Amino acid sequence: MASNAEKESEDVKRSTNEDDEDIVDPWTVVSSSEKGVDYSKLIKRFGSTEIDKELIDRMVKLTGKPPHHFLRRSIFFSHRDMHQILDLVEKKTGFYLYTGRGPSSESMHLGHLIPFIFTKWLQDTFDVPLVIQMTDDEKFLWKDLTIEETNKLAHENAKDIIACGFDKDKTFIFSDVEYISESTEFYKMMCKIQKLVTFNQVKGIFGFTDSDSIGKISFPAIQATPSFSSAFPQIFNGKKDVPCLIPCAIDQDPYFRMTRDVAPRLGLLKPALLHSTFFPALQGAHGKMSASDPNSSIFLTDSDEQIKAKINKYAFSGGKPTEEEHRKHGGDCDTDVSYQYLTFFMEDDDKLADIKSRYSSGKMLTGELKQELITVLAKLVGEHRKRRADVTDNLVNEYMKSRKLKFDY
Amino acid sequence: MASNAEKESEDVKRSTNEDDEDIVDPWTVVSSSEKGVDYSKLIKRFGSTEIDKELIDRMVKLTGKPPHHFLRRSIFFSHRDMHQILDLVEKKTGFYLYTGRGPSSESMHLGHLIPFIFTKWLQDTFDVPLVIQMTDDEKFLWKDLTIEETNKLAHENAKDIIACGFDKDKTFIFSDVEYISESTEFYKMMCKIQKLVTFNQVKGIFGFTDSDSIGKISFPAIQATPSFSSAFPQIFNGKKDVPCLIPCAIDQDPYFRMTRDVAPRLGLLKPALLHSTFFPALQGAHGKMSASDPNSSIFLTDSDEQIKAKINKYAFSGGKPTEEEHRKHGGDCDTDVSYQYLTFFMEDDDKLADIKSRYSSGKMLTGELKQELITVLAKLVGEHRKRRADVTDNLVNEYMKSRKLKFDY
Repeated sequence: MASNAEKESEDVKRSTNEDDEDIVDPWTVVSSSEKGVDYSKLIKRFGSTEIDKELIDRMVKLTGKPPHHFLRRSIFFSHRDMHQILDLVEKKTGFYLYTGRGPSSESMHLGHLIPFIFTKWLQDTFDVPLVIQMTDDEKFLWKDLTIEETNKLAHENAKDIIACGFDKDKTFIFSDVEYISESTEFYKMMCKIQKLVTFNQVKGIFGFTDSDSIGKISFPAIQATPSFSSAFPQIFNGKKDVPCLIPCAIDQDPYFRMTRDVAPRLGLLKPALLHSTFFPALQGAHGKMSASDPNSSIFLTDSDEQIKAKINKYAFSGGKPTEEEHRKHGGDCDTDVSYQYLTFFMEDDDKLADIKSRYSSGKMLTGELKQELITVLAKLVGEHRKRRADVTDNLVNEYMKSRKLKFDY
Repeated sequence: MASNAEKESEDVKRSTNEDDEDIVDPWTVVSSSEKGVDYSKLIKRFGSTEIDKELIDRMVKLTGKPPHHFLRRSIFFSHRDMHQILDLVEKKTGFYLYTGRGPSSESMHLGHLIPFIFTKWLQDTFDVPLVIQMTDDEKFLWKDLTIEETNKLAHENAKDIIACGFDKDKTFIFSDVEYISESTEFYKMMCKIQKLVTFNQVKGIFGFTDSDSIGKISFPAIQATPSFSSAFPQIFNGKKDVPCLIPCAIDQDPYFRMTRDVAPRLGLLKPALLHSTFFPALQGAHGKMSASDPNSSIFLTDSDEQIKAKINKYAFSGGKPTEEEHRKHGGDCDTDVSYQYLTFFMEDDDKLADIKSRYSSGKMLTGELKQELITVLAKLVGEHRKRRADVTDNLVNEYMKSRKLKFDY
């Protein structure tokens, strides 16, 4: 998987079209608006469904747990078939979670954390197995890296993922390079999907051209494969009908539209999805985060000093040019990156509302708002750094070992 | 691999072009001539080199062994870089053999045997390791068969291959489905090749279209992979520079043209090749053998009675319509299928020359010629049947087990 956070300028393949629609696919996120992608339009275009109050209330009722602030704040804003997953929960039938990461850089940043933070909450809330795909083969195919390097990065990134607190007894993290070459059932499922998808289809869905490598062209089947429980016989005891729920950023949806198209032709269940919005670059929602520009994001390895310096220097401000004007007219929370970041990481709704009110009215200055964010992030990143330091290579190997999890099928 | 023997009419994708050139690719062999494909033209078109007297004499000199009748009779007629392989033999440096089979039917026929008979002779003559790829994934992708069926056929066909007499200590037979899902080095090599080949290239080489599945489009990399010794670390102890020699029917050359194009970009050696002509259908060299028409070929499971009946009834005759005319003008060995078959399977040059002389002059009648062939084939197929009966599932598993062979690297 490639998170939106890694879009690099050289990956941009399609420019904004005539209707000024946002471009959203696994390699490109281009928005013409300062406020970023228009998500309501995207839901219509992709044919997914809004996560509404009714759905959230149903989750609360079924689990007895309060909704995650990502749900309350529409950071996870769109879904496919989530009601069917809740039907299963009602019937006490299980499902499993699947998410992933494309390991193209050693250090992950805040944007990469979003799906994992939410996936951990889903795992804790629903008590289900989780598989996490590290697409080291994809990153080898797309980037100027050797396959040995991307495989090593898969293990490095697994440490950050483990540091999110996933339950080892319920979580299988796998590298494609390693798991494909040890699981006959996974490889068979890959072949079955590859047989049913034509070049025409992937051209339409992903914008591939005749000049793309045959590796890229066939890769979508590899990201589709973990959506089917038969790819993990060691976990699901050979059962082919355990339903799958995929939390991911909405740029990954094309992979799973393809998967959902193929599923019935394989006699298998379509995976359900929960889609998140994109995490903005420090420079603003219309800017691209770039792995090669360390100043476009906060990395999980950044020190407190670095976090403070980056936010003060680079975080796009919705404040006014002078204190006088700001006090008079107030700041714009819709474009202010520090405020946006707080919606992701400040859990306290009341405190957040208070900040919004004070910043919008001009009572709070940009420097004070940035200080609130610095405090929140220093704590979050500091704790992550600490947990990550405790993740040994041995522990990574335990998560990445093909094995039965703590569920019986 | 798909041998020419399996070309089925539904696989024909490209019709003869304007210049009336023969069509030869892994799925299509179409010739406009009764005498079959024009191999001299094919050598020029493919850019390979004729196997001439000089090359054969050099092989004899180096090995001290007489040339196989497939070489003497130009059944193996074309090569790439065979002189470089012989340079290595001179320097006492090793190489290895690679050939394969696409398991799409339970019973193999005479045409399928040709590359294996010759490969066995090469193994015996040069004393080198041999890897045999069973492309069960390919046959699943191309045919209306499940992957479980083609995998089973790989094991069935392995019995016929083992019955050719390959030395177990020097031969590794593998199914793609099984070996890809147990060898990280094989999968890595697949990815490396898939990264370097574009859709444009496989379109040009194989004639793929936008309507072909992404499985078909990426498959050529899987057939290319065994050309590199690093795909078999258990055999070559991780050495990446053991040269490869591939004996195969010339319709497989497109795969290896692609492989040879990729090799230097991977910093690896180009595989060398020895190409055979096609084994004609009973109905004649311009006819297509069809796996679905049991009367187009002699199967290795046919009884003596079936062999006799098929040859008498179906083998296309170069004889004249009446005995009187035949005695007067003689038969045409160039189009007579029974005579063609004898060039493949009657080892005695003098006896074959005598038959040619007597048939061409009209001294020998079609019935007598057919009787000669029936005798030769009854013996050949009978002995094969007997050896195959001795091949147990256990023995197949021994050949197909990933392991070191009797060579040190």
